[in-house]
Amino acid sequence: MSRLAAVREAVGAAGIGALLLTPGADLRYVTGYDALPLERLTCLVVPAEGEAFIMVPRLEIPAAEHSPAARLGLEFVAWDETDDPYSVVAGRIGQVATIGLAERMWAMHSLRFRSVLPGAEQVLATSVLRGLRTRKSPAEAAALREAGAAIDAVHAQVPQFLKAGRTEREVGRDIAEAILAAGHATVDFVIVASGPNGASPHHELSDRVIQAGEPVVIDIGGQMPSGYCSDSTRVYCVGEPPADFAEYYEVLRRAQDAACEAVRPGVSCESIDAAAREVIAEAGYGDHFIHRTGHGIGLETHEEPYIVAGNTEPLAPGFAFSVEPGIYLSGRHGARIEDILICTEDGGERLNNRPRELVVV
Amino acid sequence: MSRLAAVREAVGAAGIGALLLTPGADLRYVTGYDALPLERLTCLVVPAEGEAFIMVPRLEIPAAEHSPAARLGLEFVAWDETDDPYSVVAGRIGQVATIGLAERMWAMHSLRFRSVLPGAEQVLATSVLRGLRTRKSPAEAAALREAGAAIDAVHAQVPQFLKAGRTEREVGRDIAEAILAAGHATVDFVIVASGPNGASPHHELSDRVIQAGEPVVIDIGGQMPSGYCSDSTRVYCVGEPPADFAEYYEVLRRAQDAACEAVRPGVSCESIDAAAREVIAEAGYGDHFIHRTGHGIGLETHEEPYIVAGNTEPLAPGFAFSVEPGIYLSGRHGARIEDILICTEDGGERLNNRPRELVVV
Repeated sequence: MSRLAAVREAVGAAGIGALLLTPGADLRYVTGYDALPLERLTCLVVPAEGEAFIMVPRLEIPAAEHSPAARLGLEFVAWDETDDPYSVVAGRIGQVATIGLAERMWAMHSLRFRSVLPGAEQVLATSVLRGLRTRKSPAEAAALREAGAAIDAVHAQVPQFLKAGRTEREVGRDIAEAILAAGHATVDFVIVASGPNGASPHHELSDRVIQAGEPVVIDIGGQMPSGYCSDSTRVYCVGEPPADFAEYYEVLRRAQDAACEAVRPGVSCESIDAAAREVIAEAGYGDHFIHRTGHGIGLETHEEPYIVAGNTEPLAPGFAFSVEPGIYLSGRHGARIEDILICTEDGGERLNNRPRELVVV
Repeated sequence: MSRLAAVREAVGAAGIGALLLTPGADLRYVTGYDALPLERLTCLVVPAEGEAFIMVPRLEIPAAEHSPAARLGLEFVAWDETDDPYSVVAGRIGQVATIGLAERMWAMHSLRFRSVLPGAEQVLATSVLRGLRTRKSPAEAAALREAGAAIDAVHAQVPQFLKAGRTEREVGRDIAEAILAAGHATVDFVIVASGPNGASPHHELSDRVIQAGEPVVIDIGGQMPSGYCSDSTRVYCVGEPPADFAEYYEVLRRAQDAACEAVRPGVSCESIDAAAREVIAEAGYGDHFIHRTGHGIGLETHEEPYIVAGNTEPLAPGFAFSVEPGIYLSGRHGARIEDILICTEDGGERLNNRPRELVVV
């Protein structure tokens, strides 16, 4: 069964009148169409009753016709610059009680849908799509493996880029070019967090000059031409690390290993989080691990399932997610180790395989 | 008056209870904080009554504290992975009749706000912010000028990259690296549309091999470290162009010039569109110009004002936008010429200055 057919079936089963998918991972997952997210409405409409169709701005029609969506037998409904595409959608789907919106639909679109369909309750399409998107097919797993190998190839080059006296931004620029050269279609994020900046999990790049003896957290990722994403973190040290840093880094490494080893079908997402957290807490660093252990990954860098306390969903074969505990000492330094894993019948397969020891450059 | 103070004043004047700005251009404009758009809620709340504050996931607090937002005297409200930040916002702003959402707020956030503030009508924050954001300050104009010069430097290198026998994707990869090397922080889009692909305005990259004698439309842009965006299109031809192409290219060049020359304060957005369209229609190509003439640009590549029929808004000094008419012959080839302009007291200042003649490489 095609993904579109599977989604249509799921829409009916969920009691939703129609799914409305604007450009983004949901649309790409269902149709293969990697449309530009723009102020002009592009929207796949999957009604529970009747045929699916896709609203496309006239100038995007050639791109849509060259996309995989053209092979699905979908009607393409072109609209011109001065038309109101929202009313066209409303007129076609009629009075429905509930519509499911793409998770990342912009307010500029969702509020227009509300005004033309005032009686329809808006819910997230995620309720319909998550069961499909979280279980990666063998082809999706292969695409994630390819992304993992590509970002590993970038980490292998980091020691050439990282030198005392360079700024984070200079190093980051080299890494961004290497991410593209390794086969990614886009650079999604480049975190080069030196010294005290390493204590900020989502620090990106600054003009700070990297000093000798400093740990540097490097968390990088991009999207492959397939649409699947990479995301991996390693910690480097420019010269010998501070003694206290080396000590907690080893705690972190054990915690990350423990969480990876806990992965297998049937185990809850929160128990993977707990496996990492226990090791860190036992060593006395619990207050310094200030985020969840991981996030799902696929056509988006962050997607379901989240590896976090409170998420009791059991892992199943095909689930792909990060395992990335961290320890952050505010004002001093920090560390995080991150691999992407796929849950298989036998346990967790790591898709990132660069050494996890601290890399002294 | 600071931007935050100006926005607070505008919120009250617009009769809106509170503005809710998730990461994106609106948040960056008001606070300077270039936060990551993520599933975890980061949200600036500007109530009409009382003090503004910003909800920040605990792990983003260091990044937020290092951002320009930290100098605004805003309260940072940290939330932990298992908290419900939406309820915190609702509890603080109380019963309001209307809330204004960032234009690109994701449905996953806007629907949560709806559920915790069921009595509040959701409208777009644009109604409050557009009057501020469309009139670029001298500093913003300077940032756009810098972005324009950077993308011009990339276009200057295109003849080195573009050769018969290479694929669009290979050329695109070189261009992407050059966009970063020219000082952009990110590559936002790279369109290399050769031969018949040139007839698709938003074609991006394919594995099509570029042939001798083919026109190639190259439309590229990125975001500078300042946050301001570049966007410029030129047409190249690998060897001598087809005779009919050369003919309509000259029509296009006259149309683009006519629209640029029409720019001055007080003239409507739609009249700039009409100035380009008239030249193209008179030459008999009206049906082949299938999109509006332009879009505003600033912290976003596409923002207000749109240069389109029906937009009667008068231009004012500081308005920045593209002028980019195109002619597209389906199945054969196409062309578009695009410059960014700023409206000044005296007329339009072009921020892209590469030659507009067809470049034969």
